[in-house]
Amino acid sequence: MNEPQRARRPGGRSARVAADVHQAVTDLINERGYGNFTVGDVAVRAGVADSSIYRRWGNLATLLTDVALTRLNAQSPMPDTGSLAGDLRTYAAQVAREITGPDGLALLRLAVALSSHGNQGQQAGDDLLVERTRQLQSMLDRSLERGEPAPDALGVLDHILAPMYVRVLLGVDPLTPEYVEALVDRLLRSLHERLP
Amino acid sequence: MNEPQRARRPGGRSARVAADVHQAVTDLINERGYGNFTVGDVAVRAGVADSSIYRRWGNLATLLTDVALTRLNAQSPMPDTGSLAGDLRTYAAQVAREITGPDGLALLRLAVALSSHGNQGQQAGDDLLVERTRQLQSMLDRSLERGEPAPDALGVLDHILAPMYVRVLLGVDPLTPEYVEALVDRLLRSLHERLP
Repeated sequence: MNEPQRARRPGGRSARVAADVHQAVTDLINERGYGNFTVGDVAVRAGVADSSIYRRWGNLATLLTDVALTRLNAQSPMPDTGSLAGDLRTYAAQVAREITGPDGLALLRLAVALSSHGNQGQQAGDDLLVERTRQLQSMLDRSLERGEPAPDALGVLDHILAPMYVRVLLGVDPLTPEYVEALVDRLLRSLHERLP
Repeated sequence: MNEPQRARRPGGRSARVAADVHQAVTDLINERGYGNFTVGDVAVRAGVADSSIYRRWGNLATLLTDVALTRLNAQSPMPDTGSLAGDLRTYAAQVAREITGPDGLALLRLAVALSSHGNQGQQAGDDLLVERTRQLQSMLDRSLERGEPAPDALGVLDHILAPMYVRVLLGVDPLTPEYVEALVDRLLRSLHERLP
């Protein structure tokens, strides 16, 4: 309990290993792209044994999903500002910052790649999508509970997330704050105009 | 000139090689994903020499772009129906059919992957994007010349293509004709309402 080393590093060895492994995965995705590295490569980069990774995550797809979810939740918790407009603006700005940040493109490519690499990858990709959709839906449900009209999670995906994702993936134009706000405003207006 | 073999195969040997190589690339993308095969693998699959591929395409990124553009242009030529609404509906329905078809996901992943695999890939991805944007813009220009309000190519990317791309990439729900039409109608309506 009083070991200084431990006190300085909350979570201890296990948390350090997880952090090192996560960072190694992010680095490898950036450098080589998904599909071009193995659990062994991650182990070497993180300075841990392969067996530690298999014991903890089971396989590469599960590890990759864990990395993606941990980063998304740390960098983009769902906001709760008290209004749908505020929540959507904050959320959209967070996502824009995250996907244009240093690891953002790697994360997006991971999401794309997970849905395409066999059953394990697909399951992991689905888990990621289901978990983020659940979080987004709770934010939208709060709006409905306040009596505000709200889009469903797919509406947010189609009209706010998808344009940003595709612009970043294709390398088209930067995501300016004005652009991101315009996407949100367009969706908010469509709720009142009963557009689909 | 009178050789029967030749008469039955318009374009001759060169066109056959191109078709075989293109098919080999599409198969390999489907089976292994982009980044997991080489020019040598394509050559083996297509039954041609490596040198034939290098002589004709120069490198893998250029070959991949050629495959993508050829398929896009064959399967989705820009329509010219006489009205913006008709053009956009036809175009959107074509894209939906193409990206949900047997090679569609491979094509989308190729576009994503090209923008991420070093300078050669990025250049090839940019060429693809520039060429398709130019074609789309001519369709939209015809509308403006007729005096109809029209979105710009980025508006079509953001509000029609991006939602379809992302739904297919993430494996969310099928693209029903009703869904695709609703995306087009939403964009058309926004032109008259001066939404962004």
